[in-house]
Amino acid sequence: MRRVYFDHSGTTPVHPAVAEEMYRYLTGENFGNPSSVHYYGLQIKKKIAEARDKLAQALGAGSGEIVFTSGGTESDNMAIHGAAYTNRNKGNHIITSAVEHHAVLNTVKALGKQGFDITILPVDRYGMVSVADVAAAITDKTIVISIMHANNEVGTIMPVAEIGKLARERKIIFHVDAVQSFGKIPVLVDEIGCDLLSISGHKIYGPKGVGALYIRKGTRWKQSLFHGGAQERLRRAGTENIPGIMGLAKAVELVTANLVQESARLKSLRDKLIKGLTSRIEHVSLTGHPTMRLPNHASFLFKYIEGESMLLSLDLKGIAASTGSACTSGSLEPSHVLLAMGVPPEDAHGSLRLTLGKDNTEEDVDYFLDVMGPIVEKLRDMSPLKD
Amino acid sequence: MRRVYFDHSGTTPVHPAVAEEMYRYLTGENFGNPSSVHYYGLQIKKKIAEARDKLAQALGAGSGEIVFTSGGTESDNMAIHGAAYTNRNKGNHIITSAVEHHAVLNTVKALGKQGFDITILPVDRYGMVSVADVAAAITDKTIVISIMHANNEVGTIMPVAEIGKLARERKIIFHVDAVQSFGKIPVLVDEIGCDLLSISGHKIYGPKGVGALYIRKGTRWKQSLFHGGAQERLRRAGTENIPGIMGLAKAVELVTANLVQESARLKSLRDKLIKGLTSRIEHVSLTGHPTMRLPNHASFLFKYIEGESMLLSLDLKGIAASTGSACTSGSLEPSHVLLAMGVPPEDAHGSLRLTLGKDNTEEDVDYFLDVMGPIVEKLRDMSPLKD
Repeated sequence: MRRVYFDHSGTTPVHPAVAEEMYRYLTGENFGNPSSVHYYGLQIKKKIAEARDKLAQALGAGSGEIVFTSGGTESDNMAIHGAAYTNRNKGNHIITSAVEHHAVLNTVKALGKQGFDITILPVDRYGMVSVADVAAAITDKTIVISIMHANNEVGTIMPVAEIGKLARERKIIFHVDAVQSFGKIPVLVDEIGCDLLSISGHKIYGPKGVGALYIRKGTRWKQSLFHGGAQERLRRAGTENIPGIMGLAKAVELVTANLVQESARLKSLRDKLIKGLTSRIEHVSLTGHPTMRLPNHASFLFKYIEGESMLLSLDLKGIAASTGSACTSGSLEPSHVLLAMGVPPEDAHGSLRLTLGKDNTEEDVDYFLDVMGPIVEKLRDMSPLKD
Repeated sequence: MRRVYFDHSGTTPVHPAVAEEMYRYLTGENFGNPSSVHYYGLQIKKKIAEARDKLAQALGAGSGEIVFTSGGTESDNMAIHGAAYTNRNKGNHIITSAVEHHAVLNTVKALGKQGFDITILPVDRYGMVSVADVAAAITDKTIVISIMHANNEVGTIMPVAEIGKLARERKIIFHVDAVQSFGKIPVLVDEIGCDLLSISGHKIYGPKGVGALYIRKGTRWKQSLFHGGAQERLRRAGTENIPGIMGLAKAVELVTANLVQESARLKSLRDKLIKGLTSRIEHVSLTGHPTMRLPNHASFLFKYIEGESMLLSLDLKGIAASTGSACTSGSLEPSHVLLAMGVPPEDAHGSLRLTLGKDNTEEDVDYFLDVMGPIVEKLRDMSPLKD
């Protein structure tokens, strides 16, 4: 069967060069603990430093500003928790948005139960946070703002640079979850003006189980989640995930080297897909912003169909897609992102997300468009939702 | 140069079969996100279930009692933090020992600053916690006891089964850090009588960046560190580290299949090393318990020498060793374990740890014994400590 993978925002295939790099650090003499004071430890310590340089360079940051973590969720948690508690003496107010990934949203909500005041900003019908809303929410007690760079479910790119400017003016720590944007659009910490920024390996053809947190030099931030050894200059306890870190650095190198051309290629595929689908099928609408969206991201609402039914039908045709974020796909709750955008709950169940990646071709899009018509027709015929 | 790796408690080389298994999940179609509802996701979901079964079987546990983590440090942190906060309504007293790994000790100390009462038990001159001390420390407010199975620096095996019995009688949650013991001596959760137990991949010829936490069914424990997606049945948010988990399961399978024979072999090498060193060199003493110790663990105090100097001299001869735990080797502080055992600070600096593993041979031990004599002689001749 022809297989088409259209779920790159869920996870990506590991790039072969990343797999080779990791294998190198799973074999031979490359197994040392970088904390060890001997041949095996010292040679690995140098390699981690090189990996850190690569990440720093890609983000326009200094090497000392990069901390390796176990992934995007840990980066988000430790960024916000650390910033909140380290600045507790300056205030207790945290601002975030209603469409953040749960790693951010649930962390902020948990802090809300620990004595912090939280503001969860609404979004417009495109899933966009308004800069004016951020400005209006800021008080003298605001210590942290956390707004994602691009939304995972609907692909909308947020006005992070403007929010960063506001945060700098008011000396508020600004955290940006760049898990979905990094590797797809430019992510440069000085252009965004953030103090903390999260990235994840497995969304950029790197390995699962590794990520990074950028921490701007001078930021009042301390590790407050993990206690243990003195690794990562006291910013993240636990023996470093060497193969993961080396794989992440290789993935970052590959994805940034090719960013401009690949973005343009994906955008053209995405637009073909959006145009093809909305022109061929009735009662389908694009979700997220029409232009300010990730180049590889197409997301839709289908009337009179359940998203899960579409996934199963597509899967039978060899096409892998999703209804929203992979992290919540086991849940029957309608998407918190779509609800925040004002989509009625009964419509939110009909969502479909198609996220393209490096191995996708025009033929993949054609194949999808060809099979989708009959699938929708059949499902709608069966649907009790349509009379 | 001949290379001898005697730092297996710091980290271990990845078993070739583990590296192959991981490579399998870094290539081909094995990259799915197990939360995804399509071909790629569903096949990986099955593989994780198999990996979980393997770990459960090795520990004598049920599959539903195993949660995958990013390593021993995370397992320790989430075990204790979760148990403490989930049972905060029943009491606020936590008992641990002075010789725990910093992932436990620093977590308990941090809770001590968050309104919990903490008791840090002393140890005897062998680094052993006394069951009577644990019993005496228990109060009506005690909610968590955390005692390691075997000490990483001096190899002493703790009376965890007796402590487990006490904990069960008093309905106190018992956490055991088994990072050093697992794969070297039997670790069965029902024999130990623990409710929570931590293991790490990279100490058992598995990968870095992955570990597990056993959580006994019915234990009043909730995740309280990481917020995010619903992975691991709400016990650990974040996309699962598939290659790491598959590698960990393979390592567990290999290390447990061969446990009895390999333990006996290592014990014989260890005893040869201890006997050889203490008989050939003056002013050397074994640290840790003489018999209740890990089969692969030999640790010593050398009078009139700095441990770091020994490490560097050994490294020049191709021998990798350590002075104590790898996690603190960058620090100039004397070992908290040796200090707790009553070793004077000036003597504690002369520690050397030699931890054997699967590729070590009699010849490795002979080589070490041959080069160590001259090294000690030279260092003592140079030492200002000896007059």
